[in-house]
Amino acid sequence: MSLTIKLTIAPRIINLNCHERNRTKFPAIRPKPIYHSNALNPILYNNKRPGMFQASVSGTVIKSSLIEPDGGVLVDVIVPESERGSKTLEAESLPTARLAKIDVEWVHVISEGWASPLKGFMRENEYLQSLHFNSLRMENGTVVNMSLPIVLAIDDETKKSIGSSKDVGLVGPEGDLLAILRSIEIYKHNKEERIARTWGTTAPGLPYVEEFIAPAGNWLLGGDLEVLKPIKYNDGLDHYRLSPKQLRKEFDRRQADAVFAFQLRNPVHNGHALLMNDTRRRLLEMGYKNPILLLHPLGGFTKADDVPLDVRMEQHSKVLEDGVLDPETTIVAVFPSPMHYAGPTEVQWHAKARVNAGANFYIVGRDPAGMGHPTEKRDLYDPDHGKKVLSMAPGLEKLNILPFRVAAYDTVAKKMAFFDPSRSKDFLFISGTKMRTYARNGENPPDGFMCPGGWEVLVKYYEQLQAEEAMPAVASA
Amino acid sequence: MSLTIKLTIAPRIINLNCHERNRTKFPAIRPKPIYHSNALNPILYNNKRPGMFQASVSGTVIKSSLIEPDGGVLVDVIVPESERGSKTLEAESLPTARLAKIDVEWVHVISEGWASPLKGFMRENEYLQSLHFNSLRMENGTVVNMSLPIVLAIDDETKKSIGSSKDVGLVGPEGDLLAILRSIEIYKHNKEERIARTWGTTAPGLPYVEEFIAPAGNWLLGGDLEVLKPIKYNDGLDHYRLSPKQLRKEFDRRQADAVFAFQLRNPVHNGHALLMNDTRRRLLEMGYKNPILLLHPLGGFTKADDVPLDVRMEQHSKVLEDGVLDPETTIVAVFPSPMHYAGPTEVQWHAKARVNAGANFYIVGRDPAGMGHPTEKRDLYDPDHGKKVLSMAPGLEKLNILPFRVAAYDTVAKKMAFFDPSRSKDFLFISGTKMRTYARNGENPPDGFMCPGGWEVLVKYYEQLQAEEAMPAVASA
Repeated sequence: MSLTIKLTIAPRIINLNCHERNRTKFPAIRPKPIYHSNALNPILYNNKRPGMFQASVSGTVIKSSLIEPDGGVLVDVIVPESERGSKTLEAESLPTARLAKIDVEWVHVISEGWASPLKGFMRENEYLQSLHFNSLRMENGTVVNMSLPIVLAIDDETKKSIGSSKDVGLVGPEGDLLAILRSIEIYKHNKEERIARTWGTTAPGLPYVEEFIAPAGNWLLGGDLEVLKPIKYNDGLDHYRLSPKQLRKEFDRRQADAVFAFQLRNPVHNGHALLMNDTRRRLLEMGYKNPILLLHPLGGFTKADDVPLDVRMEQHSKVLEDGVLDPETTIVAVFPSPMHYAGPTEVQWHAKARVNAGANFYIVGRDPAGMGHPTEKRDLYDPDHGKKVLSMAPGLEKLNILPFRVAAYDTVAKKMAFFDPSRSKDFLFISGTKMRTYARNGENPPDGFMCPGGWEVLVKYYEQLQAEEAMPAVASA
Repeated sequence: MSLTIKLTIAPRIINLNCHERNRTKFPAIRPKPIYHSNALNPILYNNKRPGMFQASVSGTVIKSSLIEPDGGVLVDVIVPESERGSKTLEAESLPTARLAKIDVEWVHVISEGWASPLKGFMRENEYLQSLHFNSLRMENGTVVNMSLPIVLAIDDETKKSIGSSKDVGLVGPEGDLLAILRSIEIYKHNKEERIARTWGTTAPGLPYVEEFIAPAGNWLLGGDLEVLKPIKYNDGLDHYRLSPKQLRKEFDRRQADAVFAFQLRNPVHNGHALLMNDTRRRLLEMGYKNPILLLHPLGGFTKADDVPLDVRMEQHSKVLEDGVLDPETTIVAVFPSPMHYAGPTEVQWHAKARVNAGANFYIVGRDPAGMGHPTEKRDLYDPDHGKKVLSMAPGLEKLNILPFRVAAYDTVAKKMAFFDPSRSKDFLFISGTKMRTYARNGENPPDGFMCPGGWEVLVKYYEQLQAEEAMPAVASA
């Protein structure tokens, strides 16, 4: 496969002058590896094929030609280093609002342009459009998708302390000034309406609602962000958190002529891999010469029983190490958004953010961003609505939607395969819950369900979790 | 005012040839009057000014030039009289679904093109777009507004009886075959999600939900309608139920160069009248020569404590008779839609349907289609959201939105006037509830609140209501 790429991308290396080629020796993206292998930039560490570097330009912004960011320009509201001092001084003079951890995740998301053209937390005008139409109308009449309200809740006391100030300093959970919010607007946070229109239910037990909306203040604070420095988590995973700008650069460097994004918040099993590899095969058949997979695990808030990000990243790493996915044509990076579990509404956000990161193909599966109904024995969303709504969503017409083919465990072939309804009894569906149950009980899933290295990561995680869970019980006994 | 019109419309009468002028002696719309006066077509009954007739063409469809119907063509799915027999025979051979009264109201709405380009009850594709985006994307990429799901619910038994039939006969509450639904699709009726996304709440006590959704079946039946004959109610008000086609014809006949629609479900008081007359004045100032008011009370389902349609029509009639509104420049007709009380979602429907009827201006007030929260002591919707959402709504860009100025009773001038915040203590706000309380208690509102003739209609209605309400109590005593 790599040979094919080397040959086929050659004709595209025509627009770069000598000066630019020389600069490619200093690639801008050089994450330090964690775990046993780093899947991120295999070419950077495998310097045997210099031809692959010719399109890379470090230090300058290359606009990926595959797909325009929403609104035409990728938002970047991180204050340049030269202005950091003066802006920080100014921020210190302003009334402040305290951010929760979830708010910092959104500051991160907005600051790098995932939500382009959104430049800050939504004002009411944007909030209402998002809530009612899942989209924003731009001044020139074009429409961009915007399905989730990206808002900052404040309480009465904070509202009072802001008074009539036009700008507000945003303070992180540790008390450090993170950003300035400009030309602010304060408006009512009607939680019930927000929840009903975003989730299509107001039943108690929605993870994002219980954690962040129910306890939040009754006001929303909108305005334009100026983020004083890039948001970092110092959890050993920051190098995986490539911004849309960095991803676009990397796609250009690799001379991708198609980028297909795979959103996930679960470990990768061989069914996922089959699907991603099959997508690549289909894209090659369609005439694309160098389709690149963006394996893009969600890195923000997830519900308590989901596998944590660090474990998932290690598992993904193993999947590439074990050769289930091809590192040559795969980029693994973290999508910094929190998870809403809002099904058809959220899948639009997942897709839209990847458009901003330069992906022009998006894989969508059964029940994306779905979960069980919190109070009834059924799926919260019709499992087919996600892909249907995504294919109709305003502002996403330019994105190629690739609906999932259902993969299941073929007990005859002893591997994950596309489900064949003509011999349905041969297939075993292994849900995320089932997979976690196997791992938790120390049982092995059927051979060929997941690569052994990846499975081991999960088993170790659940062993450790059970040991930790057992601790207090021992202590209290 | 009428003199002005006569003079100013003259220059527009230039495109009609002699043949067409001769045909204007037989106007197509000649409703029979009910009540003391009929406001509908004063010019037809006041044949003193033949110059006013010159633009009228009977028997042919005149496409009003003011505003295109959504989708470009006004939907009309009423079977031509010549095919009625054969279609009825065919309908008798089909499996059937029984319609509730509310469904018949929707058949009426769809059949005349109020919901253009919708040609029948929504299939899932349309339902999902309506629910998530309040709009439909047409095949040519344009977007039309469609904020309320217009759907037909059926139960398990009906679904079973339909089996694999492609077409279904629709049977009215009295057992008569009303329509055929073609190329049907049956899909799940997720009531919770429909309610949450339409109303922004799932609180018990929403009138439309309690009456029609809660008891409805778990399936939705979509398809293209063929309505066997025009829907009539035989309640003495059918002549007020002008179709969009008839209204467009009438606007053209009157040579309107602007049509401004006023949706209402309450009696007209002098604050409303002030607003409508002021709107006309503003339109004249803007250079329009002949703005016509479409006073357009909603005629379908309303909640129990709203004033019934027949009483409202009599009250509206009095308002015109008493000269509060000018019959020369006003058309009173009934909008056959049922009421959802779904605030910002529903106001889009109210506006969109009037676009289809040829109105290019729409007056929107405080809290349109709103009501009190069914379980909390507050308005269900932010009173400003209706006009904000309407001004942002996809597909309604072509409509001129005229936001309400708040009118209140000026206790100094002793009349309804635009509220002047600089002397707010002089103003008295009389809500619909307050007005009904006055009428119910036989008290008079302040002088100048409503014309005496109109007020008398209300007092009589409540006297009669109280008499009826007292009856069972007397009987049981």
